[in-house]
Formats: sequence, structure tokens, C-alpha cells
Amino acid sequence: MVEASIITIGDELLIGQVVDTNSAWIAQELNKAGIFVKRRVSVGDSWEEIWKALDEESRHANIILITGGLGPTSDDITKPLLCKYFNAQMVVNKAALENVKYLFETIFKRPVTDVNLKQAEVPDVCTVIQNKRGSAPGMWFEKNGNDGEIIFISMPGVPHEMKGMMEEVVPMLKNKFVLPVIIHKTLLTAGIGESALAEKIKDFESALPSTIRLAYLPASGMVRLRLSTSGYEKEEIVSSIQSHFENLKSLVNEYLVTDEDEPLEKKIGKLLMAKNKTMATAESCTGGYIAHLITSHAGASKYFKGSVIGYDNSVKENILMVASQTLQTAGAVSKETVEEMLSGVLKNIRADYAIAVSGIMGPDGGTLEKPIGTVWIAAGNSKSVVTQKLNLRFDRMRNIQLTTVYALNLLRKFIIEMEK
Amino acid sequence: MVEASIITIGDELLIGQVVDTNSAWIAQELNKAGIFVKRRVSVGDSWEEIWKALDEESRHANIILITGGLGPTSDDITKPLLCKYFNAQMVVNKAALENVKYLFETIFKRPVTDVNLKQAEVPDVCTVIQNKRGSAPGMWFEKNGNDGEIIFISMPGVPHEMKGMMEEVVPMLKNKFVLPVIIHKTLLTAGIGESALAEKIKDFESALPSTIRLAYLPASGMVRLRLSTSGYEKEEIVSSIQSHFENLKSLVNEYLVTDEDEPLEKKIGKLLMAKNKTMATAESCTGGYIAHLITSHAGASKYFKGSVIGYDNSVKENILMVASQTLQTAGAVSKETVEEMLSGVLKNIRADYAIAVSGIMGPDGGTLEKPIGTVWIAAGNSKSVVTQKLNLRFDRMRNIQLTTVYALNLLRKFIIEMEK
Repeated sequence: MVEASIITIGDELLIGQVVDTNSAWIAQELNKAGIFVKRRVSVGDSWEEIWKALDEESRHANIILITGGLGPTSDDITKPLLCKYFNAQMVVNKAALENVKYLFETIFKRPVTDVNLKQAEVPDVCTVIQNKRGSAPGMWFEKNGNDGEIIFISMPGVPHEMKGMMEEVVPMLKNKFVLPVIIHKTLLTAGIGESALAEKIKDFESALPSTIRLAYLPASGMVRLRLSTSGYEKEEIVSSIQSHFENLKSLVNEYLVTDEDEPLEKKIGKLLMAKNKTMATAESCTGGYIAHLITSHAGASKYFKGSVIGYDNSVKENILMVASQTLQTAGAVSKETVEEMLSGVLKNIRADYAIAVSGIMGPDGGTLEKPIGTVWIAAGNSKSVVTQKLNLRFDRMRNIQLTTVYALNLLRKFIIEMEK
Repeated sequence: MVEASIITIGDELLIGQVVDTNSAWIAQELNKAGIFVKRRVSVGDSWEEIWKALDEESRHANIILITGGLGPTSDDITKPLLCKYFNAQMVVNKAALENVKYLFETIFKRPVTDVNLKQAEVPDVCTVIQNKRGSAPGMWFEKNGNDGEIIFISMPGVPHEMKGMMEEVVPMLKNKFVLPVIIHKTLLTAGIGESALAEKIKDFESALPSTIRLAYLPASGMVRLRLSTSGYEKEEIVSSIQSHFENLKSLVNEYLVTDEDEPLEKKIGKLLMAKNKTMATAESCTGGYIAHLITSHAGASKYFKGSVIGYDNSVKENILMVASQTLQTAGAVSKETVEEMLSGVLKNIRADYAIAVSGIMGPDGGTLEKPIGTVWIAAGNSKSVVTQKLNLRFDRMRNIQLTTVYALNLLRKFIIEMEK
């Protein structure tokens, strides 16, 4: 079996200054190509630790993908280390040199320094993977291990440079190995806990063939269920996983949000586009996070018209047309206020549907009557509105995320009801 | 030296369905306590792989922190594995049992199932770390290794449960080991590339004592510089790193955004609060991301009043008061439009300062004249406005992030100029 290990390099990963998003992205791309990721390892900018990781991971996997440590500065040691690791000599790669010059002269419009030019040097035993988005070239090494050949691929740690390079790397890997098909089918549920879900599908689970794995992924008030399988007979495994997936869907139907591995806001986008409808948001405590999630997907302009973020009460009054009387008597965090925010944003933005949210996210601002985590959400159109009160706990970011999930799910159900 | 390794468990990490944010958070907390993180490893829900990782990491570190695999479902195998690994027997922990019952009866208001009750079982050789935020207890094991005692700590993978548990774990670790002080000092620069920065501070870098490490962290159009050191003589190392940090600051002064390890939007918040001023945003292409970043910080309500997200041109006209003539002749992505958006949002939201952005983020919507990545940004107040055109490349999310960084930095410089 062809298995990969991903090594990410950088002290910033070990002191927690940077979250490693590269590994997850690389893993997705490898899975699509039929390559399992067996391990992910992060080590610091330390010669000894990187060296040890290369040795160890080549005992675990036949493909080692490495990111980081290729920059022009002194703390970037991956390239000289790989040169030594493969007993090689540094040579200038002409294409990489042209690329560095082009980037600085044409794109960055900055003078190219000796340090930059040095980035065009590579160990003479590697195949160079050109970097269209930055100055550090990627490197592909081959080595004989105990169980056959091992491929080492070194890429920059800057995510968009690495992503551009993977467009070259994946076809090279497909060319090198005979790869199976890996299939994941994921559905998203809301309104049921992980263990209650497990209880509900326990017969299904125990009857699953050993070739199909079931996983539970709880996240922000929802649970994802994933079936995974792999094999070389594509048609056969596709039909097998598909039939089990349909069974699973029917078992959890009342809690089903979507049967795609897609977020809630994308599902809402599909519902709206199918009916040629639009939406808007009126956000207080979520501060634009709902709008951000929606607009992070390409094509959102087809159904998303805009938002009013009324963080301050004056904005709720002036643009969202919440009556000052309402704010005074019911308060900014109340059923009445979110209802008025909703009708205000619908009038001003002229969308078919809208969400309105107002709450206390913490760590300050709670009262005895309305403690931190008190949130009111509303979803509706010009004719009707549904509201819900949330009592959240924990920290600010989690409260923002949970409010967003509940509000989007309230809107999703409302749209389905209205567009029946 | 006391060093930790973090093992995160879950197939979702290896297929890239979930980004591992736990490791970074844990690493930050450990650093604050004086514990270095040497490695981070992710493995799947596989008995063999978890077992091997426990063996291997205990050769690398004296503290092994494990997250994941403690849920109530069949794919969660960490607990039985640890029971076997430490040759222990499962016993019911009374406090954990009370906690499970309390959570289901009082908080979740759902019937407690046998599966849930089983979560109160733990190996009899561990010290139990109670979970105030979920049903799976944490576990602390001690084992003699070749170089002294090794601590294994198992926690849930759900981030907020793990975070709650770390409040217990950190004091336990501090109690167990004599720990040094670890200090990181970070500054943020904008407007200069990594290699030009390196050139600028090369004498400083080569004169640094071996006890202080310098790191370069490029991110979204900016570069962070970090000095790190550690030792047992707190006062001495604090004064040493501080004096080097002051030197570094003066060398990069013209590009300095902030000398704290804080994001740009937090720096802006401080500038505004110091002068008792407020701000607003008018966002098109960033879709609420700027407002979201600002409001993700506690206390943002002191200086952030709100936003209008005019994704659709009708919102730019109706709420942001952009003249329809302007949209027709100059276009939605133009200097004229962002200037009018800015003056519109200032009038409607009545803030002291504002940002306005409009651009084409991709992957669709580009034209020959205005290709994907064309963005106009404006920052200003009621008296004056500065604008900037960006020519970005690459993918949608990166364009949203870069636009946000440039816009926030434009506003930061504008505020400093105005409040002189």
C-alpha cells in the first residue's frame, strides 16, 4: 500500500504561533489521488530533529512530504539539510533562477538580492519542482528503503506556494505508483448528540462490511458521519459505499442537514439558487462572521445580497430600524429586537430571506438576568419569522461559531418549509 | 530539559477533514508554563499506529499529551488502548460518573444511555482529570522511561473540552517539574519582504547571543520577527531579550506595525481606544471578514460600531449611498466607488473612522480590464480619505485575507497620522 507521511517544519508550529493548515490540505489532495496519509509530524527548525524525522518517517511511509524551512533566511535549514541527507552538491537550477529574477523584476518590483538568487540553488540529485508563486523551488528526491523506493518531496511552508506546487506533485505521484481509489462519503446532522446517534445506527454499524469504516465527527453543535472505503475496482466500491450511505441517510433522515461534505452555508446557497432567491444577514454579536462564512464560497454573489452589522445599538436603530423603545424595554438581546432587526434588514436590503442575531458573547457584558451566552436568533422572510433563544457557555469564539451554526440551521429549515 | 510531544488522534486529521487547532493551542499553554514542545504527531484511529506513536514519542519527550479518541462511539479506541498499554483494569470513577449524569440530566436534558455511562470508566492506574465541559474524563499516567519518568496525559479532541481540562493539567505539570521561563517577543512588519528584512538586520542577527533565537514568519503580506529565549534566571533573561528586542525594533522602525504578538486589528483597537474614537467598515468583496476579525476580540464594542456589507450593488446604492452613476461609469470596483462607500458608511454609522473595500476575489468575475485580484481599498474619516489599488493573485480566501490586511494597515497609518 502506498502511504504518505507529512512533515511540517518550523518552530512557529511548536510554540503554537501558527496553526498547521497545510497538512489538512495536503491530506485531502493525496486522498483524492488514492494515497493514504498515515502520519503527520511537526518538528522545529532544528537540524537534528529534522534529520531524525526524515529517518523515522521513512520507516513508516513510502512518500514523505515536507513543508517549510525553504525561505531565504538563516532559520531556513531544510535545503542544506536535504543536500547533506542525500549526499548531494548544490547547483544552480536555471529555470528556478529565471523564476526568481522574473518574480522580483516583474511581479514584486523589488531589487533581487544575493540571498534571493541563492534560492535558485538545489541539490544536484533532486528533480526540481518549479514554484510559480514564490522564489523557493520544490525538490523531489528518490531513495531506496527497506521496502522499496521512498519519495521525499520538499515544498515551501507558505500555503499558497505549496498549493500551487501540489498541482505538479500529484500528477508526478500518480505517474509513479499504481494507486487505489479512496472514497469518503460524509453527511451532516444537527439536533442530535453523538451517543444518541450511535444508538440509533448501531445495527447499521455492526452490519457494515469490514471494507467500510464509519467515523463520528462532532463539531459545533452538529455531528458529521463519514463512511470511508478504498480499493482498485472503482465501480464496485463506489456502488457498495453508495448503497450503505443511502441506508445511513434514511436512518438519520430527521436530523439530516446535508449529504455532502459541505458546510451548512453552502447547503443554504444551493437551496436559494435552486429557487432563485436571495438572503441577507443582520448581525450583532456574530460581528460579520455569518456573512463571512457565506461569502467565503465562490458564487455567493448569486444569492447573498449583503448585511448590516449593528454592533452598536445606534446602528440597530438607524439602519436596522429597531425601535428605541424596544431596545430600552426588551433590551438589545431579546426576541423583540432580533425580530425587528430581521424586518429592518429585509426592508433595507430587499432580500427574500434573512437571519438576525443578537447576544452576549463574553468574556464581559453578562448580567444575572442575561448571562454570557444568552443569544436570540431569528430567521424569516417578509411574511413570517421564527426565533430561538440559545443559552451558550464557554468562550467567545466558540459562542460566535455556535450562534452562526444555529442561525444558519434555523434559516435552512425555514427556507425548506417556505419553498415546499 | 522538560520536553513535550503532542499526539493528536483521529482519521479526520489524516484525511484532512479537520484542521488540527488543538496542537497550536496546547503548545502556547505549555510554552507559557516553561515546557518546550519538541514534536507534534497525528495518527489515525488505528490501534497499531497509536501504540507505535506512544512508544516512539516516549523516546523523544518526557511529557506526552494525547488528544482524541475518547468519545462514546466505536471508533474511539484511545481509552481501552491506554488501559492495555499500562497493563491496567477498567474501573468506574465515581466523580466522572456523577459528571456524566449531571451533564445529561441538567445541561443537555437528554436521557443518559449505557454508552454514556461507560465514559465514566477509566484504567485503575491513572489519575483522573475531570471534564467540566463534556462526558469523557481525562487521564494522567506515569511510567518509568530510560531517562526518568514519563507523563502521559490523555484528553478529549473536542477543543473546548480539552481547553477546560488544560486548566487542571498545567498546574499539575508545574507541580511535577522544575521548569524554566520561556520568552518569545514578536513584532509585526508590513511593507517589506522577508529577504529585504533579513538584509536590513543581518548585523543584528549575527551579533545575537546563542541563547536568543531569531525567527522570520511571513504571513499574508506581512512579516513577523520573533526572538525566543529561555532560562531559569527570569530577571536576567527578561532584561537580555528586552534589550535585543528594542534594538531590533529600532532597526525595522519604519515598517513596524506592532511590537506585540497581536494581530493588526487589535493594534487598531488600541489606537482607537486611546483616543476614545470609533470605527466602521463598508465591505463588498471581503464580505464581513474585516468586521469579523475586529469583533473576534473581546472589548471590540468599545470602538467598533458596525458595518454595511454591500455585496450586491443595490446595497451599495441604498444603504452606502453610492451614486448609481458612479457604479455605472466607474464600476463597482473603482476608486470612486470605495470613496463613496466610505463617506456613506461614515454618515450612516456615524463612526470616526472607516474602511471601505471593493474588489474581484475570484474564481469568477474577472474581466480583461479588471482581472481577478483587482481591489480598491479606502480608509478615512469625515474630512479626508486615502485610497489604494491592489493587484492580487491566487485564490479567493487568500485574496480576502490580503485585502483585509492591506485595508487594516491603511487605516492604522491613517489613524496615526490623524491623531498625531
